[in-house]
Amino acid sequence: MTGRLAVVGLGPGGGPWLTGVAAERLRAATDVVGYAPYVAQVPPAPSQARHPSDNREELARAAFALDLAAAGRDVALVSSGDPGVFAMASAVFEVVESAPPERWRGVAITVVPGVTAALAGAAIAGAPLGHDWCAISLSDNLKPWAVVERRLRAAASADFALALYNPVSRARPWQLGRALDVLREHRAPDTPVVLATDVGRPPESVRVEALGGLPLDAVGSRTVLLVGSSTTRRVRLPDGAEAVYTPRRWP
Amino acid sequence: MTGRLAVVGLGPGGGPWLTGVAAERLRAATDVVGYAPYVAQVPPAPSQARHPSDNREELARAAFALDLAAAGRDVALVSSGDPGVFAMASAVFEVVESAPPERWRGVAITVVPGVTAALAGAAIAGAPLGHDWCAISLSDNLKPWAVVERRLRAAASADFALALYNPVSRARPWQLGRALDVLREHRAPDTPVVLATDVGRPPESVRVEALGGLPLDAVGSRTVLLVGSSTTRRVRLPDGAEAVYTPRRWP
Repeated sequence: MTGRLAVVGLGPGGGPWLTGVAAERLRAATDVVGYAPYVAQVPPAPSQARHPSDNREELARAAFALDLAAAGRDVALVSSGDPGVFAMASAVFEVVESAPPERWRGVAITVVPGVTAALAGAAIAGAPLGHDWCAISLSDNLKPWAVVERRLRAAASADFALALYNPVSRARPWQLGRALDVLREHRAPDTPVVLATDVGRPPESVRVEALGGLPLDAVGSRTVLLVGSSTTRRVRLPDGAEAVYTPRRWP
Repeated sequence: MTGRLAVVGLGPGGGPWLTGVAAERLRAATDVVGYAPYVAQVPPAPSQARHPSDNREELARAAFALDLAAAGRDVALVSSGDPGVFAMASAVFEVVESAPPERWRGVAITVVPGVTAALAGAAIAGAPLGHDWCAISLSDNLKPWAVVERRLRAAASADFALALYNPVSRARPWQLGRALDVLREHRAPDTPVVLATDVGRPPESVRVEALGGLPLDAVGSRTVLLVGSSTTRRVRLPDGAEAVYTPRRWP
């Protein structure tokens, strides 16, 4: 009998951040496949096989999950956040498109959405993405840096707020600094930037910096940056805390 | 004693689409406030007061929820999808910023994220937002149409995929057609566009059209449009179904 494959979004930290639909699909799965730290976020289920893998092996991981499903297993391929945003869902469709049609014949593929990192970080900070915004991956592993920079310029010049995914890695040390230089050509130095790291799991950190003096060493590979538009502002809350938000109204 | 206010994202349809964190906060609430159809999506809880309101009264609704919290209640102000995306979180911060500091003193405000409509619709269609993308509200109730059009042009010219929220209403009949005209200047007629309506709740409808011949009467006020980038494509799946996705890799 042919099995099935769900590409499941764990939300920002798995566990309490799962939707009911995602939790149900994970409970039913005979096999959980994914990057090891994400597999570790899946709540325990008896007699479930777990297949943790290394990072940056997305296509091999997707094919392995499809192989299991074709062999009759009920497979959950897990992704942090939402699987449709810079994550495993596109990798699955890429391997399906490049394989012969008879491979994995009959396997049903479902994508189960989750709370993506940008929106989880935004919620902790307030509502910095409360108006028009763009999501951009700063990784130039799979696209030329010129494409990244062109999109940064377009988004900044039209005054979108921005969510920047994959800001740095050991192999990509200079890209974030260059991206911030581009944004500074269009935004005031006091534009709020939210740095959201490890949202939804220890050691969660959400801090707000000004674009002008943003300390690069506060950004890690698991940080999402939320860069304000020209209208994004800080507001003092009734309990003394501070939030960052973008009004719905144009000034 | 001072109460507290959570702005809670219900995800695409409430119930099974809630995160564990959101469900817990709704269970604990003494009062649920929100646009009536969203309040109806909140799972029943004994002795909980419900305060459904009309649409387009966001600021009054936010102030009412804050008043309840200041009076000692545990208030959940609910939003469909994610409260930080064209929704109630910014409205709450707007009223806080415009009110005297002593009003609502001591009330703690939390935003609880949810799965936003664009990502819920994308998951059903495949992964059309699998690469860089922008979220734009087509409503010109609170911003000039010129700002909308400038952002559409910038996003389209830099080859972002787009999620278009609030595409039409009785008071805004022509804006969607104009927006599509702008996008057609930059995108091929066969660019896939996902029309996702009432995702996560009956009568859910997700269909794929080509940008060139998109039937305007298939779009309602509760539709989110996901417009592909130049690399977005359709793929035949192993079970014969079809998905729309954007590859991670630049051609």
